[in-house]
Amino acid sequence: MIRLAPSWVLPVEPAGTVLDEHSIVIDGERIVSVSPHDEAARSHPDAQVVELPDRVVMPGLVNTHTHAAMTLLRGFADDLPLLEWLENRIWPTEARWVDEHFVREGTLVACHEMLRGGTTTFNDMYFYPGEAVRSAVQAGMRVVAGILYVAAPTRYATDEQESIERGIAAADEWSNVPGVTFMLAPHSTYAASVASWERAGDLAVELGVGIHTHLNETWGEVERHLAQHRRPSVQWLADHGALSPTFLAAHAVHMDSHDIAVAAEFGVCVSHCPSSNLKLASGFAKVQQMLDAGLTVGIGTDGAASNNRLDMFQEIRTAALLAKAVARDGAAVDAHTALRMATLDGARALGLDDLVGSIRPGKQADLIAVNLSSDDAVPRYDVASHLVYVCGRGDVTDVWVAGRQVVQDSVCRTVPAEEIRQRAAEWRDRMAPA
Amino acid sequence: MIRLAPSWVLPVEPAGTVLDEHSIVIDGERIVSVSPHDEAARSHPDAQVVELPDRVVMPGLVNTHTHAAMTLLRGFADDLPLLEWLENRIWPTEARWVDEHFVREGTLVACHEMLRGGTTTFNDMYFYPGEAVRSAVQAGMRVVAGILYVAAPTRYATDEQESIERGIAAADEWSNVPGVTFMLAPHSTYAASVASWERAGDLAVELGVGIHTHLNETWGEVERHLAQHRRPSVQWLADHGALSPTFLAAHAVHMDSHDIAVAAEFGVCVSHCPSSNLKLASGFAKVQQMLDAGLTVGIGTDGAASNNRLDMFQEIRTAALLAKAVARDGAAVDAHTALRMATLDGARALGLDDLVGSIRPGKQADLIAVNLSSDDAVPRYDVASHLVYVCGRGDVTDVWVAGRQVVQDSVCRTVPAEEIRQRAAEWRDRMAPA
Repeated sequence: MIRLAPSWVLPVEPAGTVLDEHSIVIDGERIVSVSPHDEAARSHPDAQVVELPDRVVMPGLVNTHTHAAMTLLRGFADDLPLLEWLENRIWPTEARWVDEHFVREGTLVACHEMLRGGTTTFNDMYFYPGEAVRSAVQAGMRVVAGILYVAAPTRYATDEQESIERGIAAADEWSNVPGVTFMLAPHSTYAASVASWERAGDLAVELGVGIHTHLNETWGEVERHLAQHRRPSVQWLADHGALSPTFLAAHAVHMDSHDIAVAAEFGVCVSHCPSSNLKLASGFAKVQQMLDAGLTVGIGTDGAASNNRLDMFQEIRTAALLAKAVARDGAAVDAHTALRMATLDGARALGLDDLVGSIRPGKQADLIAVNLSSDDAVPRYDVASHLVYVCGRGDVTDVWVAGRQVVQDSVCRTVPAEEIRQRAAEWRDRMAPA
Repeated sequence: MIRLAPSWVLPVEPAGTVLDEHSIVIDGERIVSVSPHDEAARSHPDAQVVELPDRVVMPGLVNTHTHAAMTLLRGFADDLPLLEWLENRIWPTEARWVDEHFVREGTLVACHEMLRGGTTTFNDMYFYPGEAVRSAVQAGMRVVAGILYVAAPTRYATDEQESIERGIAAADEWSNVPGVTFMLAPHSTYAASVASWERAGDLAVELGVGIHTHLNETWGEVERHLAQHRRPSVQWLADHGALSPTFLAAHAVHMDSHDIAVAAEFGVCVSHCPSSNLKLASGFAKVQQMLDAGLTVGIGTDGAASNNRLDMFQEIRTAALLAKAVARDGAAVDAHTALRMATLDGARALGLDDLVGSIRPGKQADLIAVNLSSDDAVPRYDVASHLVYVCGRGDVTDVWVAGRQVVQDSVCRTVPAEEIRQRAAEWRDRMAPA
């Protein structure tokens, strides 16, 4: 048993709460209690005490949309129009280089960065999902892997069906490993076939998983869908039986009021990726409007090729700031809301909210400690707003996943920094434009 | 003489350049040469060599708009609509607490944060400018202080004229101190009197200074100006003879094509404050359109009460990302452009581009070294895009102002961290809501 004794606890549930001088007692992988220090000390006198002065303990961050292995392509091509970036730079490079090896090592580099920055769960969508899972397990991270498929042949699979089968095989292989779950991951309405979309809902139910896809990321995508299918994409997905509370729409930038209403009717979840949406000039997601409509909105980094950081603190800050200007309301997406989006709402979007996303007895001990008193962060008035607007990932000092400490004093204990530096350098030398 | 020997130099001039394995030789406060390591070693064999492996040296960042002393109000009131924030929280607190002491100590806290984050020059606008200058000089920072005035009586001055006179007296007092300049700083078109605006242009010429003001920050401000004065604010300022290449408009969020054309005609400069414009829900400045029109656009943090970081790396990243979505073009404000805005263009906006803002022989040695190879920043393909999209202020290791090293290995040598922690805590305890 371990008793964490920070200056503050931000449990996310109940909403808007900050607890002063409370302890969190952990037994194995689970949270046992949250109570004042003295009470916790009396109840659990034998627990090993971890003093965390000047720190707040909050739930580990949930990154609801990324392509972790693409970390090897961090900054590979920037400042380009979307299609030129994708078609001339990213896709040819992927076609040439992406194999099991790339995915395993790229994901390991990503996990190291994410863990150090306070992310304990990530929702991945990439080729060779089994290899991504292997690295996540090695790093001690919670992962939701995508059974990715696209209609076109890739290096990974000769056709859509093979891609689905490879993903299902990976899901079977990892089905008994704690902390590993899968989602069906048709790339998008445009890149997966119509036939595959017609059966996606049924297949997801059959497999007992949710659906994770890119949706309405760019204006061009929305227009082309309408021209081709004579119905807006959200309605089209509803008509094909794909939508449900386990459907996760990544980006969801271009959602009009009707799209939002249909999505809300089916309880659809959204992964908001603010940095990526700006960097690729996709546009401004209407986050406050989606929240008001009752949608569950998590936060995601997207891949490092379009961000170029896997930094949930950066995304929380950007999400909170951007939502205010988009809604023309300085009170939109306040600090507690932004923190809930990055934790409990993200967990809900991944079907994991019974396990993680808030600090409650019985839940998994996915926790992070954040220093609120760095020399660049004085003075401090409010714990929640400090976390969102002042702190950054550099202030994360300790991270636990399912009760196991994976980051201590800002050092990742599961993946040696030297290893990720070496792997990254090797891939860079291989792939860098001459 | 000192020879800095980093892995890369990003000189800002010539545009788009990154020099591999070049040295910068500094003699006293000035840059003497930029040349390949071996050539520099031969030419200056006696120079003290500072090896900077994995680091890029670039010009110190220029923060073109802040209210440094408000750092003591960092996070004092967040997530509120603008008017409630300003009228119910910020103004009453300022009226009660802001005196010479507040400005001196708040500015010192701000300088510590800015220097550690790579900012070497700041353009300040606040009460008691002489006290802000005192702290900047103590910290070893370059400062442009505002001769601030508003029409209403404040604790600082009983009327506008007294405010102007106090500012001019401070400018006279500091007129012979290197690194200190002043600008005339009418708060805004709405808060300074019409009479003061009628003579602002002449007064600035008489004093030999530029004009720094808040302009078109909110939509309400634009509408009220039009209703009251029957002319858009930019045209109104032009008609009053206030506009010139030494006129710096902070925020400039709501600028239509006519406003931009008039501003361009007079060579007006802009301080773009992306985080603050989002946080206060002010809106989206048309940065690429202003650049295309020929305006000089620098970058600013605004005060810590509306950001809540004085972090130019954060603003550079946000400026580059946001401009793309606003312009609907992933190629808008590319990495080199964003870095130039934060250095040379900022220096030009403050009338300091002959002295600082680029790495050129003869210029002042205002330089920063940034680590491009932190464990969260691998791999690396492109120096400029890495600086903008991957790095953060935590990667700044060393800072020089006028050849004097003020930050070494991330520690500020001019202001003890212990002192700023203590000052910030004292003011917090005094001012915190009960």
